[in-house]
Amino acid sequence: MIQVVFLGFGNVNQHLFHALVQSKSVEVKQVFNRNYIDFLPLRDHISFTDDLTEVADADVYIIGIPDDAIEGFSEQLPFNDRLTVHTSGAVPMEKLSGKNRRGVFYPLQSFSKQREVNFGEIPICLEAENKEDLEKLNKLARSISNNVHFISSEKRAKLHLAAVFVNNFVNYLYFIGSDILQKENLPLELLKPLILETALKIKDLSPKNAQTGPARRNDTKTIETHLSLLEDESYKNFYNIFTEALKNQNRI
Amino acid sequence: MIQVVFLGFGNVNQHLFHALVQSKSVEVKQVFNRNYIDFLPLRDHISFTDDLTEVADADVYIIGIPDDAIEGFSEQLPFNDRLTVHTSGAVPMEKLSGKNRRGVFYPLQSFSKQREVNFGEIPICLEAENKEDLEKLNKLARSISNNVHFISSEKRAKLHLAAVFVNNFVNYLYFIGSDILQKENLPLELLKPLILETALKIKDLSPKNAQTGPARRNDTKTIETHLSLLEDESYKNFYNIFTEALKNQNRI
Repeated sequence: MIQVVFLGFGNVNQHLFHALVQSKSVEVKQVFNRNYIDFLPLRDHISFTDDLTEVADADVYIIGIPDDAIEGFSEQLPFNDRLTVHTSGAVPMEKLSGKNRRGVFYPLQSFSKQREVNFGEIPICLEAENKEDLEKLNKLARSISNNVHFISSEKRAKLHLAAVFVNNFVNYLYFIGSDILQKENLPLELLKPLILETALKIKDLSPKNAQTGPARRNDTKTIETHLSLLEDESYKNFYNIFTEALKNQNRI
Repeated sequence: MIQVVFLGFGNVNQHLFHALVQSKSVEVKQVFNRNYIDFLPLRDHISFTDDLTEVADADVYIIGIPDDAIEGFSEQLPFNDRLTVHTSGAVPMEKLSGKNRRGVFYPLQSFSKQREVNFGEIPICLEAENKEDLEKLNKLARSISNNVHFISSEKRAKLHLAAVFVNNFVNYLYFIGSDILQKENLPLELLKPLILETALKIKDLSPKNAQTGPARRNDTKTIETHLSLLEDESYKNFYNIFTEALKNQNRI
């Protein structure tokens, strides 16, 4: 049994909690959080504390707090030489205080309170200072996911950057699409099958081979019509830079 | 039985063909195409011609050819007062020759040769000059999809524009993500669950409520780190304009 304590209970740690609680090779011992949190169905077995000095002994401490608080928080921990990991894509492992053994346990997914996720397929990116700890994290990760990777802080930063493009920025394009429709009183439902198919296509085709559209085929007439239909200057700017990039891609 | 003839056999018409052939209320009579095409499993029942003068009588002619060829092609048709429709999102109905009755049968999906699609959920956007023809197209569409809409050429143009944002441009962001990973020798597999979840989220959350990321929470430190990691000037430019747009969205 790997004993785990959660430090902080934001979005990522809540999802990890619900996944790890169900794993037979893991004992979730305790949750620490500054404010009281109610995880009623399981509270008989798992202790809660809002007092750092009362944090229990465990094999792994999973710190799930805002990126810019990780460094300071890890300094405050009232123990030494235990395995502490954070769950952030963007923060180097070395930001954790060196008084404890350090690691990273980064589940690469976009978590929201409203949606359950299937952890089995979520890539978990691991890093640790020593081999034994890495093996412990590997066991922990494999108890909930079939998709576990060892990835350095440097590569993880690039991975997180790529994730911003395919998640945050993609979602903003969904917003632009929905805004264009709303102005015409058309429901977003109309675009949902296309949105889903565009994502599913990547299973079979590389993004380069999946590329279609007026810019890809250099259909200047449709491009001009589209630009004339766009009233919002910011959307027009997006349309232009994507179209330019796609035209350049054709040339390569 | 609604009798259908396909004029042209590109991507969209091929997918429509395979869907309509299976519909019990539809008889696919013929396929016309400039070049011979082989649809062997069904050729006993369906005639093929590459000669416009031999096109059969039918209730609906579905023109599936490149956008800029639709106008000229519809002028060349050697018959009058029959129902001719095109399948394009971007072309107004009026581009079809007025010597025949005109309509639009636009399935809003991204079709690729390599992927089968489930027509049942694909929005089909219809338009026709008269009520009877619209009703005929409605029957035809409902025989393959539960998601049929009557949409004017004007609104369809906006819909097509929105589709370019959520399909073509989104796919280009997938390409940027894959390119960043490739340079680190990381597999695109790492991003696929995130890509899919980002699309699925739109079922439950509006794009505005689904928005997350450094720009959304104004995390200037992560934004600066990301910009320092981006070597490609074009990607940097994309990063900057998305970040600016997301910061402005926060202010609204």
